[in-house]
Amino acid sequence: MKLYYSPASPFARKAIVTAHEAGIADQVELVNIATSPLDANPELLKHNPLGKIPSLALEDGHSLFDSRVICEYFDSLNEGDKLLPASGMERYNVLVTQSIGDGIMDAAVASRYEKALRPEGKQWDGWVDAQVEKIVKALDTLEMWRGARLPEVHIGSISVACALGYLDYRFSDLDWRKERPILTQMLDTFSKRTSMKVSDPAKA
Amino acid sequence: MKLYYSPASPFARKAIVTAHEAGIADQVELVNIATSPLDANPELLKHNPLGKIPSLALEDGHSLFDSRVICEYFDSLNEGDKLLPASGMERYNVLVTQSIGDGIMDAAVASRYEKALRPEGKQWDGWVDAQVEKIVKALDTLEMWRGARLPEVHIGSISVACALGYLDYRFSDLDWRKERPILTQMLDTFSKRTSMKVSDPAKA
Repeated sequence: MKLYYSPASPFARKAIVTAHEAGIADQVELVNIATSPLDANPELLKHNPLGKIPSLALEDGHSLFDSRVICEYFDSLNEGDKLLPASGMERYNVLVTQSIGDGIMDAAVASRYEKALRPEGKQWDGWVDAQVEKIVKALDTLEMWRGARLPEVHIGSISVACALGYLDYRFSDLDWRKERPILTQMLDTFSKRTSMKVSDPAKA
Repeated sequence: MKLYYSPASPFARKAIVTAHEAGIADQVELVNIATSPLDANPELLKHNPLGKIPSLALEDGHSLFDSRVICEYFDSLNEGDKLLPASGMERYNVLVTQSIGDGIMDAAVASRYEKALRPEGKQWDGWVDAQVEKIVKALDTLEMWRGARLPEVHIGSISVACALGYLDYRFSDLDWRKERPILTQMLDTFSKRTSMKVSDPAKA
């Protein structure tokens, strides 16, 4: 199967990290493509009408997206410890942790688009400020909430690790480690894993 | 349990429709709140640091979000036919259909924010055009793709129905029915269901 990705995308990184942690990375061919939210790559559009990465093209012609669906599929092929518990509140805690990680990425990417994609005169500080506020509140919740089970490896913590990695990559001035020892240690621990090392956007 | 929602949100509507279709709507207290992406409602923030709707507050103090997690939870309480198949390609087809429906909503909401939320001088047609292109391509894919199994009722088709309903509500000039008889019939069929009638934003 082929995973369409770009090294800078935190959502694509989430899929790549999950493939490694699920022990199935050798079954996934990575296809690095250039694409933009304003002008999607034509090859990518054949697999995903929304023109978003990551998108997964299966051998049988099916396509899977977005990152949540791809991560769940990778974990279904996982013959080791599952990254997404099958049921119960354990499952929902992992899913909510993923929602928070994804929400941080959404806000950070929206903020990035505001500055990197828009004509200068059309950029609006009010929008960026609102995204940063979301990020800060989400980080504070993760720092406090034991249900997130950091730094254990599951689909939720993978999303959080990729979100924190993206903040380091694009928003280093945010200084997210300040007064957040649990998240700081969590990313330190995660960063030693092969899955995170091979997908580090700063080394692409 | 309490579901925080706003009648205009297509993602919140998805959760409400799913509660009805799962046969558990009588267990869900709807809490209609005013909130904005720029200034989240303080009551909502107690349950979801991202300040987004829908958010579900359970009796035991746990909170569930976003709409995908809430819909899956509602279906786990469903004692009738499941809205999300348990496994196999049938499950992934439903999940990808949901991704397309959610992607249409994301693009439509982004376009709405551009026009309704931003100061006039900061609005950018290039962004709106890109969102409309995503919507059109996604609709064309749904019209052709038999794997979406429209108009059967499942979590994917519920998302698509709420997306189409939102286009009617906010983007009537898009004329999405033109040359899309399958989607047209699908929404006609869905619109007769109690779940869709009680959550129609135009009647709120």
